[in-house]
Amino acid sequence: MIDPVTPSILMSVQSGIEVFAVIAFALSGLAAGLRVGMDFVGICFVAGVSAFGGGTLRDVLLDRRPFFWVEQDHLLWLVIILCLLASIFVRRSHAELTEKWIQVPDAIGLGLFAALGTQIALIEGASIIVAVLMGVISSTLGGVLRDILCNVVPKAFSDHQPYIALAVLGSIVLVGLDRLDVTPWISLVVAVVITTVTRLIVLALNVSIPAWRA
Amino acid sequence: MIDPVTPSILMSVQSGIEVFAVIAFALSGLAAGLRVGMDFVGICFVAGVSAFGGGTLRDVLLDRRPFFWVEQDHLLWLVIILCLLASIFVRRSHAELTEKWIQVPDAIGLGLFAALGTQIALIEGASIIVAVLMGVISSTLGGVLRDILCNVVPKAFSDHQPYIALAVLGSIVLVGLDRLDVTPWISLVVAVVITTVTRLIVLALNVSIPAWRA
Amino acid sequence: MIDPVTPSILMSVQSGIEVFAVIAFALSGLAAGLRVGMDFVGICFVAGVSAFGGGTLRDVLLDRRPFFWVEQDHLLWLVIILCLLASIFVRRSHAELTEKWIQVPDAIGLGLFAALGTQIALIEGASIIVAVLMGVISSTLGGVLRDILCNVVPKAFSDHQPYIALAVLGSIVLVGLDRLDVTPWISLVVAVVITTVTRLIVLALNVSIPAWRA
Repeated sequence: MIDPVTPSILMSVQSGIEVFAVIAFALSGLAAGLRVGMDFVGICFVAGVSAFGGGTLRDVLLDRRPFFWVEQDHLLWLVIILCLLASIFVRRSHAELTEKWIQVPDAIGLGLFAALGTQIALIEGASIIVAVLMGVISSTLGGVLRDILCNVVPKAFSDHQPYIALAVLGSIVLVGLDRLDVTPWISLVVAVVITTVTRLIVLALNVSIPAWRA
Repeated sequence: MIDPVTPSILMSVQSGIEVFAVIAFALSGLAAGLRVGMDFVGICFVAGVSAFGGGTLRDVLLDRRPFFWVEQDHLLWLVIILCLLASIFVRRSHAELTEKWIQVPDAIGLGLFAALGTQIALIEGASIIVAVLMGVISSTLGGVLRDILCNVVPKAFSDHQPYIALAVLGSIVLVGLDRLDVTPWISLVVAVVITTVTRLIVLALNVSIPAWRA
Repeated sequence: MIDPVTPSILMSVQSGIEVFAVIAFALSGLAAGLRVGMDFVGICFVAGVSAFGGGTLRDVLLDRRPFFWVEQDHLLWLVIILCLLASIFVRRSHAELTEKWIQVPDAIGLGLFAALGTQIALIEGASIIVAVLMGVISSTLGGVLRDILCNVVPKAFSDHQPYIALAVLGSIVLVGLDRLDVTPWISLVVAVVITTVTRLIVLALNVSIPAWRA
């Protein structure tokens, strides 16, 4: 069980994970926006929705206030600066924005938010299934909204590669380690690594799950 | 007027209606997911969003906490089990999933959530128009999100058959019976039956409303 | 700084702006619904989502309750009556619903909600970046949802004319005037005028911003 009076090492790890998850999803969002030819404001919008969408719904559903981006509003500035740098870099370098530029940060953000969302829900006293659900929602919503804004059918539903399933896996691992009384920040790191690494392997090997109906 | 200290028979009827509405929308969601060839996790996601989307927004807008699916988290398990059974059944039987598999449970869920949402809003002290709005939102959002996730233009807006209008009808009937001091659980049942039966008749007879502009 | 004990002239101006913003977005929403041939209930739905979507998300994110349309539920009646009158008028007159019927009220609503959302956030004690974000979200979400419901790629992201950027501009102007201790209701009016007039000029002159990648 996680002690509600969370010791400071756990809080530091959680804060770090939140920052990295926001950066990862912001990168995937701005790459997606750049690919479809949005202007600067559009890119900031998509990056922001990708980065903050999942965590905001998590906080609404768990009734946590203030939102994490109100408490730490430097994250908002960070996303704007990232968008600015990326836009300049892409213009200067004429780099080709391949699908990988979206998928790799997305895989990192997926693992980070799935584990973090599940742990936050457990700390707030949620039941196992609700905690897993919070991990899944907070890690997948950003990407789904990003795809909808870019007018793409959400990859989470359409590409038949494990994606939501890996968020579920990471969330279940975290719940399991929590029940085994593993130190919370270690559980967090392990669950993140499992989801992200598995997702990266899935992408590298092009693993696919069959649809139920051929 | 509904007594805020709701007697237990009303609470039982309300709980029963919530369970059946969740099952109905989950069935319509999983049928829609199966039809477009989603994998198992995708099906669970669509079924879950269809089943819980409307009621969750209702609870956010009325500021009711905890959410109904946090209080009764067996509903989440129920939806997962339903998806599992349906997936196996469809694979085994090679049954054809016609539009009816989506529409009939959808009609049942529509009536159940419209009446329930309206009554819950009245109990929370909402005005008539807000109560009707809550009935409409909680009964239609699940289906709209289901259609968006399956990349279909929401039937609620496009098929020109009375749908949202029938949710409005059921909600108004409930408000009317409440003003006439009918026993709350009886109002609830009457309003459900009116919406659902009318919707089933509309589907059977293929009734359509004209667009405003030909 | 805005005095939290807002004097009554500011409250009157704010209420008036809320009413006009709701009317403006409702008009743009019903015009959009009429254009794609929706029936009456569909038109009310789109008009309502356009009119109340942005302000509702603003209130959820700022944790303000009751929602503005619960406190002033005559706004809901107003939107229904507007839809009824507009539907009859359009049928009678066979008027052509050009893009202008959507864009002009949309420009007015944009300016009104951007300034109002920013000021409300400042009064609630939000930081500058959060206040600007609230102005942007509350002024653009209604139009984005309207376009999604009408199955159009949101103009805010696709038309490469300044739109979200002008909401940002109005919000920043309001924050600046607030820091300069300008009388709050005057800041509000100035910020509204800047956004709306600029947007109307952009539309009239067909100004466009280049995409980052040609």
